[in-house]
Amino acid sequence: MPELRQNIITREWVVIAKERAQRPHLLARRDVPSAPQPQYAPDCPFCMGNEHLTVRETYRLSGDDGWKVRVVLNKYPALSPEGDRVRHIDGIYRSMTGVGIHEVVIEHPRHDLSPAQFSEGEMADVIDTYRRRYADMKKDRRIEAIIIFKNHGEGAGTSLVHPHSQIAAMPIVPTQIRNRLEEAIRYFDEMGECVFCRTLKQELTDRHRIVHETEHFVAFTPYAALSPFHLWIFPRRHSSSFDEIFDHELTDFAGNVRTVLAKLYHGLNNPDYNYSIRSIPAHDGHRDYFHWYLAIIPRISRTAGFEIGSGMYINPTLPEESAEFLRGIHIP
Amino acid sequence: MPELRQNIITREWVVIAKERAQRPHLLARRDVPSAPQPQYAPDCPFCMGNEHLTVRETYRLSGDDGWKVRVVLNKYPALSPEGDRVRHIDGIYRSMTGVGIHEVVIEHPRHDLSPAQFSEGEMADVIDTYRRRYADMKKDRRIEAIIIFKNHGEGAGTSLVHPHSQIAAMPIVPTQIRNRLEEAIRYFDEMGECVFCRTLKQELTDRHRIVHETEHFVAFTPYAALSPFHLWIFPRRHSSSFDEIFDHELTDFAGNVRTVLAKLYHGLNNPDYNYSIRSIPAHDGHRDYFHWYLAIIPRISRTAGFEIGSGMYINPTLPEESAEFLRGIHIP
Repeated sequence: MPELRQNIITREWVVIAKERAQRPHLLARRDVPSAPQPQYAPDCPFCMGNEHLTVRETYRLSGDDGWKVRVVLNKYPALSPEGDRVRHIDGIYRSMTGVGIHEVVIEHPRHDLSPAQFSEGEMADVIDTYRRRYADMKKDRRIEAIIIFKNHGEGAGTSLVHPHSQIAAMPIVPTQIRNRLEEAIRYFDEMGECVFCRTLKQELTDRHRIVHETEHFVAFTPYAALSPFHLWIFPRRHSSSFDEIFDHELTDFAGNVRTVLAKLYHGLNNPDYNYSIRSIPAHDGHRDYFHWYLAIIPRISRTAGFEIGSGMYINPTLPEESAEFLRGIHIP
Repeated sequence: MPELRQNIITREWVVIAKERAQRPHLLARRDVPSAPQPQYAPDCPFCMGNEHLTVRETYRLSGDDGWKVRVVLNKYPALSPEGDRVRHIDGIYRSMTGVGIHEVVIEHPRHDLSPAQFSEGEMADVIDTYRRRYADMKKDRRIEAIIIFKNHGEGAGTSLVHPHSQIAAMPIVPTQIRNRLEEAIRYFDEMGECVFCRTLKQELTDRHRIVHETEHFVAFTPYAALSPFHLWIFPRRHSSSFDEIFDHELTDFAGNVRTVLAKLYHGLNNPDYNYSIRSIPAHDGHRDYFHWYLAIIPRISRTAGFEIGSGMYINPTLPEESAEFLRGIHIP
């Protein structure tokens, strides 16, 4: 019989369709890889040497041979950096000026590398860049929530091959984030404990869903995983805002993320995926009830009318089997 | 400057990225149509004559030449029709037996028709089948919410060409539906009015987003449309549960839906889409604060890390322009 599982953090239910379940290795990408990419592409705006093709640079991490990481304004921004937050209320119609910051993080000078192939130092440079931009954007009083995310591959929403991620600093707290905060507060009020800390403690005892442990971070598949190989990476130390990460934790986090992405890359033949750092709203600071984390969502199953109609997901894999499979992937 | 708009019904914000905006006609599907489908496909389980390829039939609408609509159990069900609802609570782990009903509605004996090509009578047969199955499933005390939905095309999650839709009767009220009910109650408590009735009244006054009006139904693009050509079809009469629809309304609804689907088909070259009927939970009956409706979501833009990280959508079209474009599409 299928099983419904509830995510204690979001209160959302998911259908674990055991009868439909596919063995994890069968979910590996099967299309023939396209021709290898060149290290440099003349028309790629993110390649070293093509800096004139990007809009304004907001940050640069320099290296011996030029830059290691660059941050530029998104050429097609969803939010505009100039202007004030102005609300318009006209009967039932509520709108607001779309002010905010929308940047692109160019993760590496080379065109052809996947983050799974970065060195730990290179991954740490990317994470450190996220932290710096996050801390900087937080100072802008118009900003309420900062979303750091990555689209890897066409199925995950990008057609640009060059490794990059994005940061969107929003002038409102999105409803989904507000709802999750409310659930976290409710749990804290009832149990006197952070629901994320509680989950981490339980997963470390149970061990069935652990994928990779490092000194300061734990990667695991959620008990109510929404989709195959849905992954969370939690800091062991309770901390609400991503930019509170210490240097020694940042290096450890980079190593953990890199290992997990490499397990996906080698175990599932470079699947498309998104990841996103879920952090507390910009002005909230430290709170006992909220814990930042990274969510990774490989794009293996497709959402359809069921998900649209119910807001629920059908996961045709067992989270425990996905975790076991990934634990067994050794990185060359 | 981009604009943020809030959906008064769900309280969710959307980014209307005017700068990225594309003219509606440029969003038409551009791939070359595949070879025409045959009227009958020997290996299609939904074609007339292949009834032995389906699992148990739960309903049949008979016609002069056999059946007009059939309903069968889903061969790969997400929910199992046998057994009781049993909750398991083990510390933070909450699960439940996946009991429920998951059926497929075979909309037409012919393999090659799109619903946009159905006659109004044929569409009415499909809607009448939905109503009958809905009313029947409601009687099952284990059922809390009934989701009627359709996946049209590969991008919308189906690889089966034969016109069909699905009904999933769930043993819980999904969190998304619960949240929307709470918002509707809050609006009613504050304003003494159904937020859906209020929206419909306002849209009929404003008129910029109206797509198609019939005697009992109004099709329009939501003010805070999540994606290009996102559409709602509301009944004019306040009614909470889809199965409360009267016969004369049902015929009118079928005509409205068929016209709107045909406008999408001809205006945008047969795009992939999902639709879903949003109705009140099964045992709630009539409530002053909730109003059922149909949501149609063409799969034209792709969700990516931004949507995953924020729960918000970026819509690169103006809902007013989408509506104007669809109003202007004449059906041959």
